[in-house]
Amino acid sequence: MRAVDLIRKKREGHALAREEVQFFVEAVVDGTLPDYQIAAWLMAVMWRGMDPQETAWLTDAMARSGERLDWSMLPGPTVDKHSTGGVGDKTSLALAPIVAACGAFVPMMSGRGLGHTGGTLDKLEAIPGLRTMLPVEAFRAIVAQVGCAIVGQTDRMVPADRRLYALRDVTATVESLGLITASIMSKKIAEGVSALVLDVKSGRGAFMKTDQAAGELAAALVQAGRAAGVRTQAVVSRMETPIGRAVGNALEVAEAIVLLRGEGPHDLRTLVEALAVRMTRLAGLAASDEEALRLVTRAVASGEALERLRRMIQAQGGDPRVVDDPGRLPSASHRHALRAVKTGFVTAIDAERCGLAALHLGAGRTRMDDAIDAGVGLEILSPVGTAVSTGDAVILLHHRDGRGLDEALALVQQAVVVAEAASPPHPLILSIVS
Amino acid sequence: MRAVDLIRKKREGHALAREEVQFFVEAVVDGTLPDYQIAAWLMAVMWRGMDPQETAWLTDAMARSGERLDWSMLPGPTVDKHSTGGVGDKTSLALAPIVAACGAFVPMMSGRGLGHTGGTLDKLEAIPGLRTMLPVEAFRAIVAQVGCAIVGQTDRMVPADRRLYALRDVTATVESLGLITASIMSKKIAEGVSALVLDVKSGRGAFMKTDQAAGELAAALVQAGRAAGVRTQAVVSRMETPIGRAVGNALEVAEAIVLLRGEGPHDLRTLVEALAVRMTRLAGLAASDEEALRLVTRAVASGEALERLRRMIQAQGGDPRVVDDPGRLPSASHRHALRAVKTGFVTAIDAERCGLAALHLGAGRTRMDDAIDAGVGLEILSPVGTAVSTGDAVILLHHRDGRGLDEALALVQQAVVVAEAASPPHPLILSIVS
Repeated sequence: MRAVDLIRKKREGHALAREEVQFFVEAVVDGTLPDYQIAAWLMAVMWRGMDPQETAWLTDAMARSGERLDWSMLPGPTVDKHSTGGVGDKTSLALAPIVAACGAFVPMMSGRGLGHTGGTLDKLEAIPGLRTMLPVEAFRAIVAQVGCAIVGQTDRMVPADRRLYALRDVTATVESLGLITASIMSKKIAEGVSALVLDVKSGRGAFMKTDQAAGELAAALVQAGRAAGVRTQAVVSRMETPIGRAVGNALEVAEAIVLLRGEGPHDLRTLVEALAVRMTRLAGLAASDEEALRLVTRAVASGEALERLRRMIQAQGGDPRVVDDPGRLPSASHRHALRAVKTGFVTAIDAERCGLAALHLGAGRTRMDDAIDAGVGLEILSPVGTAVSTGDAVILLHHRDGRGLDEALALVQQAVVVAEAASPPHPLILSIVS
Repeated sequence: MRAVDLIRKKREGHALAREEVQFFVEAVVDGTLPDYQIAAWLMAVMWRGMDPQETAWLTDAMARSGERLDWSMLPGPTVDKHSTGGVGDKTSLALAPIVAACGAFVPMMSGRGLGHTGGTLDKLEAIPGLRTMLPVEAFRAIVAQVGCAIVGQTDRMVPADRRLYALRDVTATVESLGLITASIMSKKIAEGVSALVLDVKSGRGAFMKTDQAAGELAAALVQAGRAAGVRTQAVVSRMETPIGRAVGNALEVAEAIVLLRGEGPHDLRTLVEALAVRMTRLAGLAASDEEALRLVTRAVASGEALERLRRMIQAQGGDPRVVDDPGRLPSASHRHALRAVKTGFVTAIDAERCGLAALHLGAGRTRMDDAIDAGVGLEILSPVGTAVSTGDAVILLHHRDGRGLDEALALVQQAVVVAEAASPPHPLILSIVS
């Protein structure tokens, strides 16, 4: 088998056979395939696409390219959630303890933020002392003891994805449905969970800008998961406005804690409940959505979910007192309010601009080696639908001595729309793909 | 300007601007552009194509990427010919001296064979002592003194093409009209000739398998030449059957000499005349095709063309006595005849299979570092249209102690078709693109 022939086959629009995909991925990992042949193949895949079967084979070969975790020693079902990336999305921080409290094990491997979207690991690391880069054995022990843990993927897992992704980034071959699917699902399959819920974001603040594109990605992800024997469902959710009221690492941790106390903003609660219900159902803990919702509600109302978060934080080396006293989380030195310049209703708060504003304040990174300021971010005081008068504070910017404030302010000014009439609320959950 | 943005622009189907193409080619040559970004761009070009303007810009940027020759010191016009590669195509060996005898200067830079097609340099090097890798100053001096020379391109010319071609070969991105055009024309433009005739081959034995594809390539080549200020025309000629009777390096040199003596097979004469007429016209030596044909015929009949070949061989270090005594050329140790297995008419001799047969005998190479046996090859004794009886020799295989004979014999057996009725002859020249 010669790589150039596989490139030509793909270039001519044919699907590669299973053994061809395996040969290719093995050569990616063992280094015998040069970067330029991978790059040409990636562009041919952008051009011709991959059918679901080929995508499933690629996913499987990538998942097998490194270490895979095994949870068969656990006395209960395993389930995870993955989001395609949103602004203000702190659902993982609440979901892992909620679903653990419902009786499943949630061994969550998460990522870091890049560009305008945040990453769960960065949020979690806002908690003093907390470590997310743990040895696999420690991860396994915490999941077994607490029911949940949120860590980063080790270098030994899915090496094929690391090499492919690094090349996709510099060869303009990121936006391929098949390659995105294989990248996401290979990592999740290597995690070894038996069930997976995907939160596919749709809208201007998301990677997928239209509901159709998001729906196609959701379908492809579910199909690839099923092909690998993982019970998989996807929720397509709207990403036009930040989720909840907080954007920024420590602010989002605090908001997740508030949610686990049974409070918190409606949209965040809606999304967490929808995802928790799907996770609980897929884990086999409830026979109906109603039953699942009762389990989820009880996990929060009983304080058991909050307790799981507390134990998870402690087990990962963090200061568990933040759960009772979010004031222990890092905070910014200064605040500046964006105020309404007219009277009316807030009809839009653009997620992407808010994400970029938080990035300018220091909450995110444009390169993977940028440092993050855990304390800075945005606090939405007047969410979409709120009636405001001229001079009312709409967004509070938490900044560090003015760093990035001018750029952030300009962005949130553009992000917020105040109109004379309120617009009807959009549904947050667009569809369920199962 | 970032390479990844140029790749994305091409991937999205847009034409690059002139300065973008220049940036890209400069980065290819100075080494700042990594192979993988070039490879992704090459595949994006395969996918989206390049419009004539973009192709012309790429051609120009590539032609300027290294040393360019200047012939302004010569007292007459310069003209060259380039063929896209055929089997048994020894026209260059005859054309250069003929057109020089007509009064133009022919500084021909030619290539080596790969796969089933031969290369002019390999053929010429069958002449004992002859050197084709000459310093530019020697090349210039020979062209000025003799009127023609045939050499290889120096490493300092068109370095962009060398890097791009090496990558195209291993990334399945050879077959792009725009890339082929830019590769061919950048090398010819860097040669510095003021006029150029292209022989674009069409048919099963050619790179372009259909007349339409060959016509499109001819049009693209002519357009790119014109854009660079080179008077350019193309002849589209049929490549189903080897040109002339000889396939193999020394055999083809001998046939070219025979042609310059005013003899030789009809098809070869037809093609050489057609190309010589176009070259003579484009060089401004004749006002009509009729006048050009008279010049060409006289150059051969007077012996002046043969004399130019003799002087060119001598100037390039070869043994000029081969012109009068082709027996001085290398020859194979053995002969084996393929005989007709039935009585009828030879209706086809497949060029590609003949080329592959000669390759098996040692006349060609599959990798650029393979050694070549100048003496071996095929001699067509019964060309297409000949009436044969069972047992008549159709093709004589010149082999070296049986090397590759079995494979070659199997190939020529498949190549030759004998039918009960003769088929009407096909025209050799399909069209002129000017």
